[in-house]
Amino acid sequence: MKFNVYLSGEIHSDWREQIIQGCQANDLDITFSSANTDHDSSDSAGDALGAESQSFWRDHKSAKVNAIRIKTLIERCDVAIIRFGDKYKQWNAAFDAGYCAALAKPYITLHSEDIVHPLKEVDAAAHAWATTPEQVVETLKYLSSN
Amino acid sequence: MKFNVYLSGEIHSDWREQIIQGCQANDLDITFSSANTDHDSSDSAGDALGAESQSFWRDHKSAKVNAIRIKTLIERCDVAIIRFGDKYKQWNAAFDAGYCAALAKPYITLHSEDIVHPLKEVDAAAHAWATTPEQVVETLKYLSSN
Amino acid sequence: MKFNVYLSGEIHSDWREQIIQGCQANDLDITFSSANTDHDSSDSAGDALGAESQSFWRDHKSAKVNAIRIKTLIERCDVAIIRFGDKYKQWNAAFDAGYCAALAKPYITLHSEDIVHPLKEVDAAAHAWATTPEQVVETLKYLSSN
Amino acid sequence: MKFNVYLSGEIHSDWREQIIQGCQANDLDITFSSANTDHDSSDSAGDALGAESQSFWRDHKSAKVNAIRIKTLIERCDVAIIRFGDKYKQWNAAFDAGYCAALAKPYITLHSEDIVHPLKEVDAAAHAWATTPEQVVETLKYLSSN
Amino acid sequence: MKFNVYLSGEIHSDWREQIIQGCQANDLDITFSSANTDHDSSDSAGDALGAESQSFWRDHKSAKVNAIRIKTLIERCDVAIIRFGDKYKQWNAAFDAGYCAALAKPYITLHSEDIVHPLKEVDAAAHAWATTPEQVVETLKYLSSN
Amino acid sequence: MKFNVYLSGEIHSDWREQIIQGCQANDLDITFSSANTDHDSSDSAGDALGAESQSFWRDHKSAKVNAIRIKTLIERCDVAIIRFGDKYKQWNAAFDAGYCAALAKPYITLHSEDIVHPLKEVDAAAHAWATTPEQVVETLKYLSSN
Amino acid sequence: MKFNVYLSGEIHSDWREQIIQGCQANDLDITFSSANTDHDSSDSAGDALGAESQSFWRDHKSAKVNAIRIKTLIERCDVAIIRFGDKYKQWNAAFDAGYCAALAKPYITLHSEDIVHPLKEVDAAAHAWATTPEQVVETLKYLSSN
Amino acid sequence: MKFNVYLSGEIHSDWREQIIQGCQANDLDITFSSANTDHDSSDSAGDALGAESQSFWRDHKSAKVNAIRIKTLIERCDVAIIRFGDKYKQWNAAFDAGYCAALAKPYITLHSEDIVHPLKEVDAAAHAWATTPEQVVETLKYLSSN
Repeated sequence: MKFNVYLSGEIHSDWREQIIQGCQANDLDITFSSANTDHDSSDSAGDALGAESQSFWRDHKSAKVNAIRIKTLIERCDVAIIRFGDKYKQWNAAFDAGYCAALAKPYITLHSEDIVHPLKEVDAAAHAWATTPEQVVETLKYLSSN
Repeated sequence: MKFNVYLSGEIHSDWREQIIQGCQANDLDITFSSANTDHDSSDSAGDALGAESQSFWRDHKSAKVNAIRIKTLIERCDVAIIRFGDKYKQWNAAFDAGYCAALAKPYITLHSEDIVHPLKEVDAAAHAWATTPEQVVETLKYLSSN
Repeated sequence: MKFNVYLSGEIHSDWREQIIQGCQANDLDITFSSANTDHDSSDSAGDALGAESQSFWRDHKSAKVNAIRIKTLIERCDVAIIRFGDKYKQWNAAFDAGYCAALAKPYITLHSEDIVHPLKEVDAAAHAWATTPEQVVETLKYLSSN
Repeated sequence: MKFNVYLSGEIHSDWREQIIQGCQANDLDITFSSANTDHDSSDSAGDALGAESQSFWRDHKSAKVNAIRIKTLIERCDVAIIRFGDKYKQWNAAFDAGYCAALAKPYITLHSEDIVHPLKEVDAAAHAWATTPEQVVETLKYLSSN
Repeated sequence: MKFNVYLSGEIHSDWREQIIQGCQANDLDITFSSANTDHDSSDSAGDALGAESQSFWRDHKSAKVNAIRIKTLIERCDVAIIRFGDKYKQWNAAFDAGYCAALAKPYITLHSEDIVHPLKEVDAAAHAWATTPEQVVETLKYLSSN
Repeated sequence: MKFNVYLSGEIHSDWREQIIQGCQANDLDITFSSANTDHDSSDSAGDALGAESQSFWRDHKSAKVNAIRIKTLIERCDVAIIRFGDKYKQWNAAFDAGYCAALAKPYITLHSEDIVHPLKEVDAAAHAWATTPEQVVETLKYLSSN
Repeated sequence: MKFNVYLSGEIHSDWREQIIQGCQANDLDITFSSANTDHDSSDSAGDALGAESQSFWRDHKSAKVNAIRIKTLIERCDVAIIRFGDKYKQWNAAFDAGYCAALAKPYITLHSEDIVHPLKEVDAAAHAWATTPEQVVETLKYLSSN
Repeated sequence: MKFNVYLSGEIHSDWREQIIQGCQANDLDITFSSANTDHDSSDSAGDALGAESQSFWRDHKSAKVNAIRIKTLIERCDVAIIRFGDKYKQWNAAFDAGYCAALAKPYITLHSEDIVHPLKEVDAAAHAWATTPEQVVETLKYLSSN
């Protein structure tokens, strides 16, 4: 069974690569997609549309350009993996989770145990919670088998 | 014009009261609603359904009970105010924002300027960004007039 | 906070009355509704439209008439309570649960622990599982407070 | 005409194989899909995400993982076949039927005559009722012809 | 239980009055609505917007003005009664039935037995078929009771 | 530009063939689909599921089996052509038109001028009215060009 | 029959007052709503949220605040009246028309005959076209009668 | 990442060709579509369905035929580019923008700075504003990369 999987969240570790390589090693029929994961490139997504002197509007323009891609990919996916790391606010990951929940698009959270409490609302609407990329690979392997 | 306003996010300051009192002082025809804002009561929302030994499942049960209320109120509201404070992760606030965005329910963010960058995706889908409760009151006054 | 609650499932015990009276005793602002809970009356819902010689078609006509009411009430409710008793197949209760799940309408299941395994798919999409009417009353009291 | 058919329900008899082989024997352009039909494998779907000491939560995790697959397949299908056998509660089959009904996804029930009465609500929302896999094959042959 | 009922179809007999009076005689909590049932007035609904020399465009303008009312009332109703009489094409009644079906709005057809065959597709998507206004009253009485 | 076109209505003339051949002669990139247009075969669509003694139920079963196909094809199509001939009631064609209208699926009606008045509601929601298959071919040629 | 009517477009003539007074003179049960029709006040809708040095962003903030009101009112209305005057671009009126069309919300355009050609796409999706406020009043009187 | 892009608006300059050629020069995996951009051909889209003596109805027929194509293409696209030139009313472009907004389909506006004020509502619902085709190409290149 073919799956489209959207990978949302943390960009400062290699969890995406681990999941993708783990699925490839298992020959799973899965297509992966992501928002732009290059921080500087993402922050300057709107610069081509004209420079902004205020950081709020620069961020605003870039975030809206990025949203075209994110929105399209979330709507195309069958399931999303939403990763929360140890650092940064990662409100965009929680935003994606809420967006998925309202669209009734299933998602799996990926985060360590120490942030279970602040993520309880996000986990409550998830279909699964994993703590390691290997667990995500196992779950995708299970789902796409047969 | 009558509005139903949902107040989401930070529970450790009195921003809700400031907005509600500011609107009452202006005689605005607005009904406000919120999730349970009492931290301990919210965390124990599921306890009546049986004790849990693992904190993940206790959180899970409580968050799902609270979600019945939150989901119902977001769907009933015309506009949400989503507050991000200085402390805590507040992933639930970002989750509510994503939920509103996917439902095409307008929301106004309320946060200080120093967290503009990490909130850019959340602000990009908002209809407005305010830095003080007074600004929210002014905006609601404007919207509900005439 | 006002809630519309739909009560689905078992008609051979007084769980509905226990919930309704428990909520009244707490002065909760809740409106309850149900399918027709009189077995014989429900089975003959379609008889006024002409007698049927085959039991399949008699059942079919009655079930479709009842579905007008059930469908309308589920769509009007904010949350459903879905009760599974010890006897009978109660496939209609599971059907209502699936219907709620697809509409993203929250529901709480009410059943004893010994049928947790066969109800796992139904419980997995529920917002809560209760074992007694008192627990349902407590949860509705919590949800409708404030 | 190409059809995607989802096969839901009983896992203890070979009705799926009979339908698939019957359609292949007729060279029908039909793609079939199912939930995981291996009982033990299905019950342990969530085990990779961490062991649970309580059976409720083990069931819960596995059912939610399975729901990612079921939900995706139901939404992709054009018509579902929902099978009720002689044994077990099979509430998940009735749940799938309700889910299909709310999504306006057509389904055909497959069950013997002796359970017509308890299945009347499920049959009332179905597009057809069959008593044998051969009848399902005949109906799919009819639908996909021309 | 309160119901909003839309009465669609034949305008040359008093079936609407029979249903409304029958429900009033039973003190049912039902609100009825209809398209404009005055033939000449309905045909000239668009005349105020300017005369048309071609009958197609006169009909077109009037039908579109009437559609504002019909569409609004169908969307507001809980159940529609769709009446097919002995004369005339009554394609608008079948059109309303298809409109209801696609919106998953339940409807009851009201017609005599001799037109069962040409109405089979319309009846197949209905929740009930009645042959007399009395049967409709009985069914509405049943539905709105309790 | 590729189009999927559903052909609904009259089965007693060769209008479908005229449109299909006209489009093929113009090398248009169009896929056509239809309900079963063989009258006897269509009327017996449900017979494989068991004989019925009453004509209402025989019709009902067949119409519901046919509805699986019709519903699927209407939802897959980009535009429907809905044909009303000189004879018969053709309520199913008007039903399909209403179904398309509620789904916001564009349709073109095909009928002679003498039935403009009884079809005014159906034409009012159509995107075009043609009187000959050649006009439909011209319109499809125009739409699929470039 | 009660109607909610949204009045969109031109703010430089008294067409709104003419329609409202005409309906009041006829005692029609209609509630009217509008965007803010005070040009300066509308342009400064976002000023309370902080001054902007660039006119694009000042406009952007104000337009988004106004959109909260417009969106809410369009979704609440049963029918919109969309007015195009002789001057100005009035792209917001055409935008509202497109918004209504996509939501399947009926609207009536109000404009003089000399701009029929550039408004053909907007009129094509409308339920009616009027050239004077009196015609709109007549149409609303017709629709809300009975 | 593959994108379907709909190009809406001005037909009197070569902005479409500039964007298409710019994307081809960058080997982007993008499919472009448009309404009919030949003015005379577009105005006569409905002529094959019979001549009209009144210009309103000729425009009406043509606009409705064109709407079949436009509606289908907007619903198929991932993002729309909506161009406003210096001349003409271009209400159809604003209409398309409103249609996209209500469907939550992202769009980018393309217009010069001097019409920022009258386009503020259209820009407020856009994901980006560009002033040159090159900026659009850069943005599409960014979006479809990786």
